[in-house]
Amino acid sequence: MAPGPFITVPSHLKPAGTSGPDLLAIERRKASFDTQQMAEYLHGKSFLERQAQLVELLSNDPVLEKSGLNYMGRTDKFRWALAKDKRLAVLAREHGWDRETANHAETLCDTPGPFGLHKSMFITTLDKMGTDEQRKAFLEPALRYEIIGCYAQTELGHGSNVQGLETTATYDESTQEFVLHSPTLTASKWWIGGLGRSATHAIVMARLVLKGKMGGPHPFVVPIRDPQTREMLPGCTIGDIGPKQGYQSTDNGFLLLDQVRIPHFNALARFAKIEADTAVYVPPKNAALTYGTLTWVRANIVRQAAMVLMRSVCVAVRYCAIRRQFADKDSPKFEGGKPIETQVLDYTMVQARIFPVLAKAFAFHYTAKYMFELYEQNVSGIDQGDLSLLAETHASSSGLKALTTIEAAESIETCRRACGGHGFSMASGLSSFYNDYLPNVTWEGDSYMLSQQTSRYLMKTARSIKADFDGPKRSFTVDYMRRYIRDPQAKADIEFSGDLLDPLMFIKAFGHRAAYLVQHALELRDGAAKRSWNSLLVELYRCSKAHSQALIVYNFGMAIFNDKELNSKPALRTVMQQLFLLYACHVMSEEGAEFMSSGYITPRQYHLLQGKAQEMQATIRPQAVALVDSFAIPDFLLNSALGRQDGRVYESLFDHAVRDPLNSTKWNVDIESDTLDMDGTLPKSHL
Amino acid sequence: MAPGPFITVPSHLKPAGTSGPDLLAIERRKASFDTQQMAEYLHGKSFLERQAQLVELLSNDPVLEKSGLNYMGRTDKFRWALAKDKRLAVLAREHGWDRETANHAETLCDTPGPFGLHKSMFITTLDKMGTDEQRKAFLEPALRYEIIGCYAQTELGHGSNVQGLETTATYDESTQEFVLHSPTLTASKWWIGGLGRSATHAIVMARLVLKGKMGGPHPFVVPIRDPQTREMLPGCTIGDIGPKQGYQSTDNGFLLLDQVRIPHFNALARFAKIEADTAVYVPPKNAALTYGTLTWVRANIVRQAAMVLMRSVCVAVRYCAIRRQFADKDSPKFEGGKPIETQVLDYTMVQARIFPVLAKAFAFHYTAKYMFELYEQNVSGIDQGDLSLLAETHASSSGLKALTTIEAAESIETCRRACGGHGFSMASGLSSFYNDYLPNVTWEGDSYMLSQQTSRYLMKTARSIKADFDGPKRSFTVDYMRRYIRDPQAKADIEFSGDLLDPLMFIKAFGHRAAYLVQHALELRDGAAKRSWNSLLVELYRCSKAHSQALIVYNFGMAIFNDKELNSKPALRTVMQQLFLLYACHVMSEEGAEFMSSGYITPRQYHLLQGKAQEMQATIRPQAVALVDSFAIPDFLLNSALGRQDGRVYESLFDHAVRDPLNSTKWNVDIESDTLDMDGTLPKSHL
Repeated sequence: MAPGPFITVPSHLKPAGTSGPDLLAIERRKASFDTQQMAEYLHGKSFLERQAQLVELLSNDPVLEKSGLNYMGRTDKFRWALAKDKRLAVLAREHGWDRETANHAETLCDTPGPFGLHKSMFITTLDKMGTDEQRKAFLEPALRYEIIGCYAQTELGHGSNVQGLETTATYDESTQEFVLHSPTLTASKWWIGGLGRSATHAIVMARLVLKGKMGGPHPFVVPIRDPQTREMLPGCTIGDIGPKQGYQSTDNGFLLLDQVRIPHFNALARFAKIEADTAVYVPPKNAALTYGTLTWVRANIVRQAAMVLMRSVCVAVRYCAIRRQFADKDSPKFEGGKPIETQVLDYTMVQARIFPVLAKAFAFHYTAKYMFELYEQNVSGIDQGDLSLLAETHASSSGLKALTTIEAAESIETCRRACGGHGFSMASGLSSFYNDYLPNVTWEGDSYMLSQQTSRYLMKTARSIKADFDGPKRSFTVDYMRRYIRDPQAKADIEFSGDLLDPLMFIKAFGHRAAYLVQHALELRDGAAKRSWNSLLVELYRCSKAHSQALIVYNFGMAIFNDKELNSKPALRTVMQQLFLLYACHVMSEEGAEFMSSGYITPRQYHLLQGKAQEMQATIRPQAVALVDSFAIPDFLLNSALGRQDGRVYESLFDHAVRDPLNSTKWNVDIESDTLDMDGTLPKSHL
Repeated sequence: MAPGPFITVPSHLKPAGTSGPDLLAIERRKASFDTQQMAEYLHGKSFLERQAQLVELLSNDPVLEKSGLNYMGRTDKFRWALAKDKRLAVLAREHGWDRETANHAETLCDTPGPFGLHKSMFITTLDKMGTDEQRKAFLEPALRYEIIGCYAQTELGHGSNVQGLETTATYDESTQEFVLHSPTLTASKWWIGGLGRSATHAIVMARLVLKGKMGGPHPFVVPIRDPQTREMLPGCTIGDIGPKQGYQSTDNGFLLLDQVRIPHFNALARFAKIEADTAVYVPPKNAALTYGTLTWVRANIVRQAAMVLMRSVCVAVRYCAIRRQFADKDSPKFEGGKPIETQVLDYTMVQARIFPVLAKAFAFHYTAKYMFELYEQNVSGIDQGDLSLLAETHASSSGLKALTTIEAAESIETCRRACGGHGFSMASGLSSFYNDYLPNVTWEGDSYMLSQQTSRYLMKTARSIKADFDGPKRSFTVDYMRRYIRDPQAKADIEFSGDLLDPLMFIKAFGHRAAYLVQHALELRDGAAKRSWNSLLVELYRCSKAHSQALIVYNFGMAIFNDKELNSKPALRTVMQQLFLLYACHVMSEEGAEFMSSGYITPRQYHLLQGKAQEMQATIRPQAVALVDSFAIPDFLLNSALGRQDGRVYESLFDHAVRDPLNSTKWNVDIESDTLDMDGTLPKSHL
């Protein structure tokens, strides 16, 4: 529960002018569509029902009360999150939640906790990579929380490059044990969520040493703490890695292993395995299968990015509809005869910053949907031995992970800044959200590195089309590349502003640009210059970005053509078309240099795009509050004085202020005095 | 002092491969110039000497020991900063520091404290706007810290727009008192540094009410807390506004005034004043004078932005020289016969992200220098009644404030991300730095709003040249606009990559682009379309940005031509030319869409610029560590495990980890248990 209040604010004082609630009510009446209908279209009825039930349950649970979080230091935040994770585990059991419901509850609580990796990577890995006996031994107690696990791959000196890991697992045939060992300081496992203070077990990725020969990495289940005493087991040095920019509530940890022996049984053995008697390594039958899981993880990242955009723009739009600043000299407004300041949301410079985020939320939404569909297709394809879709899906998912996480992080900050000074208060709800989201850009493959996987596929595809134009099987990528090669000098078919109304025009344009960039990079790599891969990383990054944007424009555009549910609801379809146009014009003019330098558009067409983007901002303006309402983000999740559904911004900021525990002390500012508070209990130096 | 250590790490373990210290030593040997000479050129010998003395003093003072800060919650951070500010006040007195030295010490301590606004705005305002009697009454005790002040302008509902303030100061002629009052909740003073828990006095900006008529804002000295008991004075409701994304160590506060009476004497009266007997408002003689101070403040912001870039890129460059990741398949490297991973600094994608920051640090440095020169010229000009420079200086300073703060904030994050996973640790030193720097984008005029002041001046200048080509007096702006109007169809004089070596080419190009954008906006505003100011804010923002970039390119380029000291040191001049070329090519290709869409450059020239930027990155690569060394940022300020001068990155990260107080508790993860630690002292719920 929030502390305080430590100060009493005169209750007769109200904010000046039209109240926040009234302003939002006025905005909500402007909508041309039904908010609830849009919410159901976006999220589905069952999601909304489940969310309502969960919010009811969670928001009334005293253990899960969030309003004190902003005032807590790191240790208290961790303590809160541990209590929360224990409570969620009990609730999940009591209510028989399936995994999706448990995840939804976790999302709503919105504070990464010590059991996060236990519930995701630890359990998933045991489930997917453990034999039946291993599942029985480890997965079952894990599901009952009798053991708490983590997933220890990253090392102090080694992140994305799994081949660079230093931790070794040397097989001792005489005892049929693996000896796990950290030979150096940089071999220490590092950043491992839940390891620092919580886990009893770790899945350790270590390089196999068999008969004195170093092999590749393999996962082992290693007991690290005594579940009863909580003491570190012999040979293990474990701790929390210290405070981070976000994720304060999680105990990311380190682990040094000093010749720790585990039985042969603890090497996960469902796919690759080591023969106990012969010490022979048996490789997995089909390495491609792991790509399936990866696609699913990345589809989730894209969906999460869409949710990030929705949440941040919801705060910015609602607050900017309430906040007023400066009078508009060209067209002054009045209230009760007095001149009033303009709603910040009416400034075109504010619109130009946050409405693209609004449109992008829908854009990412459709691509997340597409990724899940692809995942399903892949799964059934693999079941039937068809791996044809796999490479394309994997490549696209890498590029999308990079693009959407970078843009989502940027969008939170864009929205925070649009909230002006109050955006900097923790009460905005955007600061801790930003800091907790930020690692997404770096983990699961650093976004700037990861995009190379996309470009590598794009280069390969371009090469095979070059070798045999009709050879490669049709796909999104192959299609736009073939179209480009048929007519590399193609020009955008835009003469008047009205020509921009056709989504196909944008789909073609983004495909052309992506293909152009790939051909250009390929020429530098394979042509006379024979440039090294490293010297081309910037060009390759551009290829991946262009490909990902093309895919997003394609999915958004095709939804407008083909999405049956959307097309059956004209009011939704109309606003969605406007959002598409805003998104496409915005991105195309943002990337204008590439479109112009490829010769695809002229300066005049570039100006038309800019003009249309601004026109669409004005069109979206009256719908903005209703659109963010349709994202259906409950106040419990939003946790924002600025973005709250009822618009009581200023009252809520005051409430946040008077509860700060700093207000409970009278401080001693006398520079001659050696104490820091008026009671004289806080000495001057050292903490 | 840092707590702990709570865990012991085996001391025989070392990082793998060549050590950080050795790697940095190798890098340092690559430099083509003398680091110390560059440092002296950049900062001046006296600055470096003063810094060395201060670091020696401060880093050995136990009260100022910073290594525990990352582990502290908000209240402890505030307590630390209060102790620090008290200590600095005593040291300043003991050592007889002048203001510059005191500021330097403050900068080195790098933690905004409760006396920050007392030392800056409170004292400056009393000094500049107080009469001699008022200075005696308020300034003198303030300088002795007998009273602690703050500057209360911003209100809960009103930020940048001073005309919108709601707090009133009604003059009561009968008692010759002003009655200060907050009529609404939104009238509450808000965000005021030092007000929350520390200040005894506030300079309150309030709207004058004279004989029942509402006038403009005026500053008043208002006693708000009893200096002895620290109780709020009658009529004052005061508190801290609660935690923020950064600035945790400062007590930004709120203040509600309920009919608080102060004597007529407390209205600051050096310029504008109110006659005590007649209640007549006497306006200031010369409003332009205030622009002088503003220019000085903004020149400082530009200088600070340069320092921000230096500090963040110093961390990134040193760490990326030590960090290795992935082997380069095209040209594998070996150490002792074994293949080794590539230094991250060798990846062109990393170079493309952080070397432009490196070059920009120098670019901003020269423009800060120029701004201070302009300020001096203005001051002596004003003394002689010459106000001609004022408008241009003020306009440029607004645009530069906007551009440099936005880019500095972005650069910290760019550098943090280039540090990969470890960039997210508080041990990077970049996270708290980012969060504390961030408000610069919003305060002193929101950067997105403020740029309108620049564009307004640009539009006005363009109009007067249009009206009378030879009329306006020469200035930077007038010059590039005239050049444009003489030949609006001018094209860049670039045929070969070698043509890019001429700084003048870039100076002309950036001037042309700025003038083009202004003419374009002017046409929309004054031409047939008669567009409203609000509808043009995006275009106007672009004008301001283009103008500011033109100024930065101009100052950097001219330094290479004209700076005598630089030209007397060939080794420095050579690397500076490379940095200029990198900066100019980078920005010009970043802004390529505008250069192309104005018809000034062709797609081919755009590709030449991109190529040259990459070429310059490779040229700068071997100089990078030496260049960041030349920024002369002491470890005491840097406070970074990743960026430390000696390169002991991994040892330092471990040290940061084992000291986290979270490691001092054994936590209870049993979901059935109601306590959270193994001693059973922490109950499950509520904090």
